[in-house]
Amino acid sequence: MGNNKLVGLKNQDMVKIEEKQGSYQQEAIFDLKAYLNQRKNLMEEALDHCLPVGKPEKIYEAMRYSLLAGGKRLRPILCLATCELAQGTVEMAMPTACALEMIHTMSLIHDDLPAMDNDDYRRGKLTNHKVYGDDIAILAGDGLLAYAFEYIARETKNVPPERILEVISQVSYASGAAALVGGQVMDLESEGKTDIDAQTLTYIHTHKTGALLEACVLSGAILAGASSEDRIKLSKYAQNIGLAFQIVDDILDITATQEELGKSVGKDLQAQKVTYPSIWGLEESKVQATKLIDEAISQLSHYGEKAEPLRAIAKFILNRKH
Amino acid sequence: MGNNKLVGLKNQDMVKIEEKQGSYQQEAIFDLKAYLNQRKNLMEEALDHCLPVGKPEKIYEAMRYSLLAGGKRLRPILCLATCELAQGTVEMAMPTACALEMIHTMSLIHDDLPAMDNDDYRRGKLTNHKVYGDDIAILAGDGLLAYAFEYIARETKNVPPERILEVISQVSYASGAAALVGGQVMDLESEGKTDIDAQTLTYIHTHKTGALLEACVLSGAILAGASSEDRIKLSKYAQNIGLAFQIVDDILDITATQEELGKSVGKDLQAQKVTYPSIWGLEESKVQATKLIDEAISQLSHYGEKAEPLRAIAKFILNRKH
Repeated sequence: MGNNKLVGLKNQDMVKIEEKQGSYQQEAIFDLKAYLNQRKNLMEEALDHCLPVGKPEKIYEAMRYSLLAGGKRLRPILCLATCELAQGTVEMAMPTACALEMIHTMSLIHDDLPAMDNDDYRRGKLTNHKVYGDDIAILAGDGLLAYAFEYIARETKNVPPERILEVISQVSYASGAAALVGGQVMDLESEGKTDIDAQTLTYIHTHKTGALLEACVLSGAILAGASSEDRIKLSKYAQNIGLAFQIVDDILDITATQEELGKSVGKDLQAQKVTYPSIWGLEESKVQATKLIDEAISQLSHYGEKAEPLRAIAKFILNRKH
Repeated sequence: MGNNKLVGLKNQDMVKIEEKQGSYQQEAIFDLKAYLNQRKNLMEEALDHCLPVGKPEKIYEAMRYSLLAGGKRLRPILCLATCELAQGTVEMAMPTACALEMIHTMSLIHDDLPAMDNDDYRRGKLTNHKVYGDDIAILAGDGLLAYAFEYIARETKNVPPERILEVISQVSYASGAAALVGGQVMDLESEGKTDIDAQTLTYIHTHKTGALLEACVLSGAILAGASSEDRIKLSKYAQNIGLAFQIVDDILDITATQEELGKSVGKDLQAQKVTYPSIWGLEESKVQATKLIDEAISQLSHYGEKAEPLRAIAKFILNRKH
């Protein structure tokens, strides 16, 4: 529709048509950057609000320090997006979205401890134990994990209790020894080994990061009352983007370093860490990541426009540069 | 009834009367030792069953090592007893009872870590991190905490979902920064200080141990569908026995050592740890503990015989010698 055809129309009609044009444009080119930015701001506000400082102050400060330390907030955003896709609302999913970020934060705090990966910095800030000490960092993680379930159980509104229970069941499963914790154990056990095969590497990633990502998507679907057919499709979407995310991470460790530092040796390579590119090579890794993202997007074919945020997030995971 | 009156009765009648006598005796003198023994065995079996070894084996072994390391199992026994008192069944409360022991175990594993209390032994066995390493011990605690909520949500049968959600809310609250974790933080902050007052000491105990004990009793009541009046009474019972338990612990640290080792200096005194006897003196501590137990038992006056296990447990807490 060219604007010249609108000459002579009344102002009010002009506005209506322009609105429609805007809407078409939004449909055609989903503005992921604006979407992610808006959702990130929404999450920052919700996270700040969900955990007020109580007594003893020190532990609440430690929990808030890491929970509010930024990041992409991809997990809670996926939870909200899937709930909306399945005809639910942001309000229904918000307590679970916050809880998922608490659990993710807990895993980072414990992972960074000297007894684990011994990292001093995370997202450019000192890690929790460097600020508060190992003891408080351990307890801050415990506090976040416990609070996650309290928050889902207590704060989820306008959702039948059976669904909330199912969400708690899925989220706790994804956080435990059969998933996240198990993945961390395998990761620790693989440290320094150079004979890790693709199967073990995939085990680590699907458990350490994939399971919680899947729980984000699945819990959004459960809260909205999605059918089991839809849940299966959305779970597959999540599994595929989760693994692609890791492969792209491995690729970026090589290529981003090449571009930025002008040398071909990345952190993983220096640490002699087994990665997808070290097993498959760089080209095959790119092929596999693309395949996974295609597969993820194909799971969304029935949902039309409503699935645009999930499609855009999948493409973003593949094409991101950092 | 003297046995001489039974001469001449048929064997079958003899048996019936003896059974009745046994029942009267049980009513009059509740056999707490047999009760606790039977319930402990029931719990050992349930705990062994609730956490089968999965993959990666190491983390499941570490979780099972501490979960199945014995102890009085007082927490889950309280949960079952309260559920029965409030007309519920053992089956309704068993998943929650197991979960409460998982959370208690988690707190012990993390408490024993070098970054916290740095204990090598617990109940005569090497602590978790001494066997599996600090990293696995941290993750075993995380795994137990996450699994506790999964187990309640997934395994509780024949209870309306609203009640299960309320139990999860109460149990997670009792495990978090506002209760158990917060108590541990205050305990850590009080270490080495000799000017701790009774108020701070009570804060530590009511949070570090009291809140989870209260959650045990309260969750049993909630699962059975107890009225809010009953819940208040039972919560007060739990708060009182919880604090009495700690006071008696402090007393035993002095008196049990006196008897056993023939010296008047206990562990707490050696460590210059502030305790109730160090603030109130030994006699006043005994008076306070007795008062708390009396108060706990007075909360049970409406329940008649059904509350006999809870009454006997309260008395046991006061009169125990170890």
